[in-house]
Amino acid sequence: MKQDSLLFGAAYYDEYMPYDRIDTDMKLLKEAGMNVIRIAESTWSSWEPEDGVFDFTHLHRMLDAAVKYNLQVIIGTPTYAIPAWLAKKYPAILSVTKNGQFLYGARQLIDITNPDYLRHAERIIRRLIEEVKDCPNVIGYQLDNETRSAGAAAPETQALFVQQLKEKYPDINEFNQEFGLNYWSNRIGRWEDFPDVRGTINGSLSAAYKRFLRGCISDFHHWQASIVREYAKPKQFITHNFDYSWTGHSFGIHPEVDQFACAECMDVAGVDIYHPSQDHLTGAEIAFGGSVSRALKKDNYLVLETQSQGLLPWLPYPGQLRLQAYSHLASGANSIMYWNWHSIHNSFESYWKGILSHNLEPGETYQELKDFGTEMHSIEKHLINLQKKCCVAIVIDNASLTGLEEFPINVAAPSESDYNHILRRFFDACYELNIECDMVSVRDDFSKYPFLIVPALYSASEDTLRKIDAYVQNGGHLLLGFRSGFSNEELKIYHDNQPHLLTTCIGATYDQFTRPENVSIRFHEKEGFASVPDTYPVSDWIELVHTTTAETWASYEHPFWGKYAAITHNNYGNGSATYLACFTTIPAIKQIIKRICELINIKIPEYHFPLIHKCGYNDYGRLVHYYLNYSSSPSTFNYDGKTGLELIENHSINSGEILEVNAWDLKIIEEN
Amino acid sequence: MKQDSLLFGAAYYDEYMPYDRIDTDMKLLKEAGMNVIRIAESTWSSWEPEDGVFDFTHLHRMLDAAVKYNLQVIIGTPTYAIPAWLAKKYPAILSVTKNGQFLYGARQLIDITNPDYLRHAERIIRRLIEEVKDCPNVIGYQLDNETRSAGAAAPETQALFVQQLKEKYPDINEFNQEFGLNYWSNRIGRWEDFPDVRGTINGSLSAAYKRFLRGCISDFHHWQASIVREYAKPKQFITHNFDYSWTGHSFGIHPEVDQFACAECMDVAGVDIYHPSQDHLTGAEIAFGGSVSRALKKDNYLVLETQSQGLLPWLPYPGQLRLQAYSHLASGANSIMYWNWHSIHNSFESYWKGILSHNLEPGETYQELKDFGTEMHSIEKHLINLQKKCCVAIVIDNASLTGLEEFPINVAAPSESDYNHILRRFFDACYELNIECDMVSVRDDFSKYPFLIVPALYSASEDTLRKIDAYVQNGGHLLLGFRSGFSNEELKIYHDNQPHLLTTCIGATYDQFTRPENVSIRFHEKEGFASVPDTYPVSDWIELVHTTTAETWASYEHPFWGKYAAITHNNYGNGSATYLACFTTIPAIKQIIKRICELINIKIPEYHFPLIHKCGYNDYGRLVHYYLNYSSSPSTFNYDGKTGLELIENHSINSGEILEVNAWDLKIIEEN
Amino acid sequence: MKQDSLLFGAAYYDEYMPYDRIDTDMKLLKEAGMNVIRIAESTWSSWEPEDGVFDFTHLHRMLDAAVKYNLQVIIGTPTYAIPAWLAKKYPAILSVTKNGQFLYGARQLIDITNPDYLRHAERIIRRLIEEVKDCPNVIGYQLDNETRSAGAAAPETQALFVQQLKEKYPDINEFNQEFGLNYWSNRIGRWEDFPDVRGTINGSLSAAYKRFLRGCISDFHHWQASIVREYAKPKQFITHNFDYSWTGHSFGIHPEVDQFACAECMDVAGVDIYHPSQDHLTGAEIAFGGSVSRALKKDNYLVLETQSQGLLPWLPYPGQLRLQAYSHLASGANSIMYWNWHSIHNSFESYWKGILSHNLEPGETYQELKDFGTEMHSIEKHLINLQKKCCVAIVIDNASLTGLEEFPINVAAPSESDYNHILRRFFDACYELNIECDMVSVRDDFSKYPFLIVPALYSASEDTLRKIDAYVQNGGHLLLGFRSGFSNEELKIYHDNQPHLLTTCIGATYDQFTRPENVSIRFHEKEGFASVPDTYPVSDWIELVHTTTAETWASYEHPFWGKYAAITHNNYGNGSATYLACFTTIPAIKQIIKRICELINIKIPEYHFPLIHKCGYNDYGRLVHYYLNYSSSPSTFNYDGKTGLELIENHSINSGEILEVNAWDLKIIEEN
Repeated sequence: MKQDSLLFGAAYYDEYMPYDRIDTDMKLLKEAGMNVIRIAESTWSSWEPEDGVFDFTHLHRMLDAAVKYNLQVIIGTPTYAIPAWLAKKYPAILSVTKNGQFLYGARQLIDITNPDYLRHAERIIRRLIEEVKDCPNVIGYQLDNETRSAGAAAPETQALFVQQLKEKYPDINEFNQEFGLNYWSNRIGRWEDFPDVRGTINGSLSAAYKRFLRGCISDFHHWQASIVREYAKPKQFITHNFDYSWTGHSFGIHPEVDQFACAECMDVAGVDIYHPSQDHLTGAEIAFGGSVSRALKKDNYLVLETQSQGLLPWLPYPGQLRLQAYSHLASGANSIMYWNWHSIHNSFESYWKGILSHNLEPGETYQELKDFGTEMHSIEKHLINLQKKCCVAIVIDNASLTGLEEFPINVAAPSESDYNHILRRFFDACYELNIECDMVSVRDDFSKYPFLIVPALYSASEDTLRKIDAYVQNGGHLLLGFRSGFSNEELKIYHDNQPHLLTTCIGATYDQFTRPENVSIRFHEKEGFASVPDTYPVSDWIELVHTTTAETWASYEHPFWGKYAAITHNNYGNGSATYLACFTTIPAIKQIIKRICELINIKIPEYHFPLIHKCGYNDYGRLVHYYLNYSSSPSTFNYDGKTGLELIENHSINSGEILEVNAWDLKIIEEN
Repeated sequence: MKQDSLLFGAAYYDEYMPYDRIDTDMKLLKEAGMNVIRIAESTWSSWEPEDGVFDFTHLHRMLDAAVKYNLQVIIGTPTYAIPAWLAKKYPAILSVTKNGQFLYGARQLIDITNPDYLRHAERIIRRLIEEVKDCPNVIGYQLDNETRSAGAAAPETQALFVQQLKEKYPDINEFNQEFGLNYWSNRIGRWEDFPDVRGTINGSLSAAYKRFLRGCISDFHHWQASIVREYAKPKQFITHNFDYSWTGHSFGIHPEVDQFACAECMDVAGVDIYHPSQDHLTGAEIAFGGSVSRALKKDNYLVLETQSQGLLPWLPYPGQLRLQAYSHLASGANSIMYWNWHSIHNSFESYWKGILSHNLEPGETYQELKDFGTEMHSIEKHLINLQKKCCVAIVIDNASLTGLEEFPINVAAPSESDYNHILRRFFDACYELNIECDMVSVRDDFSKYPFLIVPALYSASEDTLRKIDAYVQNGGHLLLGFRSGFSNEELKIYHDNQPHLLTTCIGATYDQFTRPENVSIRFHEKEGFASVPDTYPVSDWIELVHTTTAETWASYEHPFWGKYAAITHNNYGNGSATYLACFTTIPAIKQIIKRICELINIKIPEYHFPLIHKCGYNDYGRLVHYYLNYSSSPSTFNYDGKTGLELIENHSINSGEILEVNAWDLKIIEEN
Repeated sequence: MKQDSLLFGAAYYDEYMPYDRIDTDMKLLKEAGMNVIRIAESTWSSWEPEDGVFDFTHLHRMLDAAVKYNLQVIIGTPTYAIPAWLAKKYPAILSVTKNGQFLYGARQLIDITNPDYLRHAERIIRRLIEEVKDCPNVIGYQLDNETRSAGAAAPETQALFVQQLKEKYPDINEFNQEFGLNYWSNRIGRWEDFPDVRGTINGSLSAAYKRFLRGCISDFHHWQASIVREYAKPKQFITHNFDYSWTGHSFGIHPEVDQFACAECMDVAGVDIYHPSQDHLTGAEIAFGGSVSRALKKDNYLVLETQSQGLLPWLPYPGQLRLQAYSHLASGANSIMYWNWHSIHNSFESYWKGILSHNLEPGETYQELKDFGTEMHSIEKHLINLQKKCCVAIVIDNASLTGLEEFPINVAAPSESDYNHILRRFFDACYELNIECDMVSVRDDFSKYPFLIVPALYSASEDTLRKIDAYVQNGGHLLLGFRSGFSNEELKIYHDNQPHLLTTCIGATYDQFTRPENVSIRFHEKEGFASVPDTYPVSDWIELVHTTTAETWASYEHPFWGKYAAITHNNYGNGSATYLACFTTIPAIKQIIKRICELINIKIPEYHFPLIHKCGYNDYGRLVHYYLNYSSSPSTFNYDGKTGLELIENHSINSGEILEVNAWDLKIIEEN
């Protein structure tokens, strides 16, 4: 979605305010250069305080103020948090999970397949949109918020699942065979005997249920979109505020949402990204979230929420807020919106602070954003709608994430070695090397990328494996990670040599693996790794690989596993396949990636993290370079682009010039 | 309550004994100098083995034996542990909590608002007291034991809560506003829609429910007291065995009991204090518990339970039991009673040992207590009814404890930085400096104290804040801790500069705070801290303070937070206010307290922990000094009182004399 | 049960295979020298896919293939994993526990007292055995598998328990007294008032319920055996696959099965043993499990399951599988069977790998077993039916295990200091010293052993204590561990000096104990411990022992506990009793055991772990020595047996010859 201006603003809740200050707030927003507020998405009980009784007072106050101060408005449907009266009237709306039924209180505890919920949700959506659709400042709609399936497993929900299985497997014997249900007497003779899936120990069945719940979320979005589309004006977009897996902050792909499928019904992808700050601000989560969001519509995206003061440990150092904001733009975001405008005085997220502290005064955080607003607007036209041309794509896959949830690589410490932690090592290696990546789904066409990284694709259909094989045959360069291609789409492990259909492609195979103890890997000098230091640690998982046609790039340092390959490289068809057979560290993965880039002539800059480079083409067709310094010390680098203009200070830069970027500062150079 | 003699004794359970030995035991008690037993409080099922069938055999055996051996008796009502038949007949008596309903077994699992429970409790209380009231040896009654609310949340209990809310907030809109219920759609349109409070995420609502449960406990005590008063003779007192928050031992104020409110219906405060032993015996818990207990009736108190052998790690070193006993007296206790007389041979607390081991022989522990008994009785008249005159008071507050449960200063490790851990740092700093403290409630008049310490008063009404402000204006010296004055009595955060009404008083303010990492504080030499060593660590919470009229006593050592004040001091009205803006260590707090005492001419002794000084005025109006050595090494000190008499060894001591106290030993000097 | 040939084989599941390969598999089994498969025990739903509908297709395929390839077959009754239809039809079959009722899914969740379950279990057992009993290759039956009680506590199950109590205690007052139910008002006036035992805090009651559940398991086995015996041919044996307590691998005696009682109805004891591997392979679990299994029928036993590739960290180093297999035989096993033949492609235990990897090819693991098979068969007649003559017996006791669950020696870290961890220190000390041990129950006659070790016999009847006393009086040598003899069979603590009836026997007593901090023990030189290094650590538990007639072998190093004995030794009657009063380390226990062996002339070899010696008499009446090297380095030793023949390499060895055993290798010498 091409935009005319960058969106800069905040979530705003007139209904949370301790006293009337809407005019003050809108004025402050405006003075900070902000041009958009996001409203209405959390407070169904304010819009419908009793069943069928509607009250849009706060809504209209906000719309009126927005019009007065010429602020754009994004309207969220308020369906992710239900009113108390609704839960009281239809207790079954609260999701029944493995741990029993939720009590009313928090958001996102709803069984989104519940018909009573859906009926009331539809009513409030229609009423709300009716109220706002004609307001000229409304530019778009956000469907729900960070939608969850809440582990829904009520009997009615499970019945939908069983129905889908019956349709997919008309022959119950085939179902039993594919899912391996003979094991531990789990065979189901008749569909009527289907047990409560919450008790299952069958990984295939558990994964299928998680896939079913992902489908419920996608269906829910498509259903909401269809309602909103009935009202939306042509220029009003539809989006959603997607979030990520959470490790105290945004971390990896969402464990229960197929964002690709959900985004199909939307005009633009929206996202929230929260990340460590102070000494732990690296920009990696901003880049990661940006890559995922960009992938959903293959286009620019909206940052609908990010932190200003945020949680206690996130209070930014001077300069960090500005650096973060530019980092989003450099990844292709067309908006920066904060959650939220003010800090909350009651309830739950009172210490997830907004732009204003609890005193509701324009403090240091407000001032830094105001300065950024002024600066950003002065160069906005050069930054908006940034288009990237990445050479490298990384495959991300919900089904494999689920697969490694069911069968963790380390059952003793599953969370530190889960799918996302594996994925992030590959992504972060690229990030630290200043290699910008696109994300792709296995359903996407990834043939255009010279370099494809496939981490831990544990669950892969034979079609997918053939597609990857063809990619290499046709000249692509593949870096395949351990645990890939191991099981099919129902998590049935392939019963031949691993990695099944890719053994020829990688020129190597294995049938054994173990948890390494006192094992490291050593790169082989003769394979061009002369400069690589001695050894790198491995943990959790190593495969004992025999090569057939591949070269061995690295082996294990261990008295008994030393004879097996740890990293192999195979020329295959017109391309090549590199295989990493163990869970190793980012520095080791960087060695592999650098070597592959060298072999296939992808140029990597000399400078690297904490000096991050991002680039893309702006609306003038010019290449814009960002140099972002994620460090409390200055960074120096040799500018390797064409002669251009540093946009912030507005002076020209020659190719080859040596530049210094201050602590938590940046430079933006537009090539001539 | 003024006493004639110190109570020295134990809880006694004839009904637990493996064979009849009541005569042996009473004889042993008597020979040890003991003069009181506490009976009956745990064994309702012995007194009423079937519904309406009563059997007081064991009771009368104990009363008869007490009369024979001239032992005094305290009678406990047995209501904190119910018989199996009662739970069977009225299943709803067992509390329904967030985690479901309790099963029968342990004590204190009762819903104390349940009418069936209350009816049966009243019957057993009346029957029991009828049996004992005329026994001349019965000196008092203990209501229940360590009363709990057991997280009661049955629908009927919640209905009482909602009823109280309705009465407090006739306008439901005001209620919604004050509690911030618009947040996440929690607004309640009609009282009928009130959801199950167990699910709430609203901190104000959750805290209000905890306050309601505190009220249930207070009501319960007042109700029991009114029944017992119908029977009690004029000289028979009413008390309760209060306990403390528990960290493996008594630690801080009780998280669910408003002891001030409960104690109003009693004649004397009773308490149990359990503490670490062996190398970890510091006396701090004895002093802390003593200060709290003394506060409840502004008078002496009874130690109704403390350890003899106790839990496995508590087996005392030689001398420790005696030292502990005198430490209680030195804090103003008028009794030392052990739980319990004998070690239990079955059930649950078999390894919480009594004075006698399981062999029921007078062993080493008995011998030490017997020696103490003889010694103590020889000087008893000089020790009893000790009256303290403390210069320093510390504010303790249930509502703020609850507030910091709802909004912990470190959500990642809430238990190490909770209200009590903050409170204890202030108390322990005073303790180690040999500054004896009183405890006060915010409802108390604390104007008489020259020095008032207010730790973490997170929940404070505007009246309270004005009262503190007036205290300083009128000449008081305040040490105010971080997180104070931040929210009102419903945990609504004040929406102006922090700490709200006290900003003028402390001459400083802040609106930002963060979790410190690699941050320490440094005192400023120019402010009189020349001798203070370099820096002190801070953890979990720092506020970024701007001074207005205050001096900065200490700042943060940090590249970005260094410009903010960590400790400030402000002369205000006729007094002064010192503000500590961060969670720091006891040594740092000691520096602050020493400096304040220096400024306001409170004299602190040279000697300090492990040599502890306590003092007070005895019935002769003479000042009695205790010097207690909590150490395996001897301690030497310069006696700084007036010339007097060392009571134990009965020889006179001159002012200025240098004295040595042996390991785990003490001296008691009565000034002439 | 005397066997003609060693059983060597695997569990086989045709019903789990992804495609038909039974002929291939049987051929591979046969080629590896395997001669037995164990089938049918997990897959009731395959044999009875719908209620009353039977399908034995897979079963007959396996039987037919076994006949074709001349493999013996062990049939398991499939009752430990129920079909979904059975759970659907009779929901009460799933056990109701402290944590609620199980959901259908995993095995071993059944209430084995449920009549509907038992009726259907009997039907499938009868149908299955009918199908197989006449097959000439069927050599035996396994009852159920690793039977559990699943914490069964449904009202009906509890009613059975109360009924047993009523029968044992016709007088309810005696019951209350023996169980100490007066404590905390738990007294039960009428059996009708018996509360739900899941809530009890009474350790005696809780332990009695666990004993009841052990009885349910024993009854279940006897019941299944009686059914199977109706069909079994005279040469077909009955066994069960017993397992052990689990700490990530087999560790100690089973916490909820009285294996002695269960085994009474069987012909031969069966067992599964899983153990650490790679650098952590010590053989200790193999030896421990062997000792326990040998004890059940006082005879050889069957290893029905052990690991080949097993769990991820267990992938064996080259040589380890062979070493493990011989280790089992050296302990008296007459079979080595693996779980399982192939790795599973779906469901749950997909990464508990079999002999074949998921590719179902004969890989490295298969090859090593095949080599072992050939070698073993060549010397089989010399190894089979090995009979041991141990001088040392260790008492193992379910009731004491339960007792220390109820009253852990360290409540703060109960799992590291539980009964099995204490037991294992004694066993492992013997193991490392190359002292082979038998295990005995307190019901066994242990008078024949010169040396009896009794660890932590916390729950002991007076009869048992008298039996131990008599053992010593009659010339036995006792090593009694701390916490022994402390409570009776209902966990009522004895109310005289400890250890009750054994105080005279050990010549020492105590009534106090504590958790040691900075305490160690020092052996006394004068008692013959001149060469013992300085001190040994103690943890968790020390008793403060006074000697009467005993010598003190070791005392505590501690300023206050130094006056008490830590280890005592007493000559008593014709024997001696050594008492270890504290939880100390294996090296310290080895010192004690060595000293006792020296005093009573039990010879201990010079060589020790990692070179392990085991021996026994074969069918030729010749003594066979195994020398097993559990190490990645070679071990050298001085052969101290009579001149004989090394069986594997078939060459003679002279007495006194110096021999070297390679890494993870062994020697087997049969004395001439």
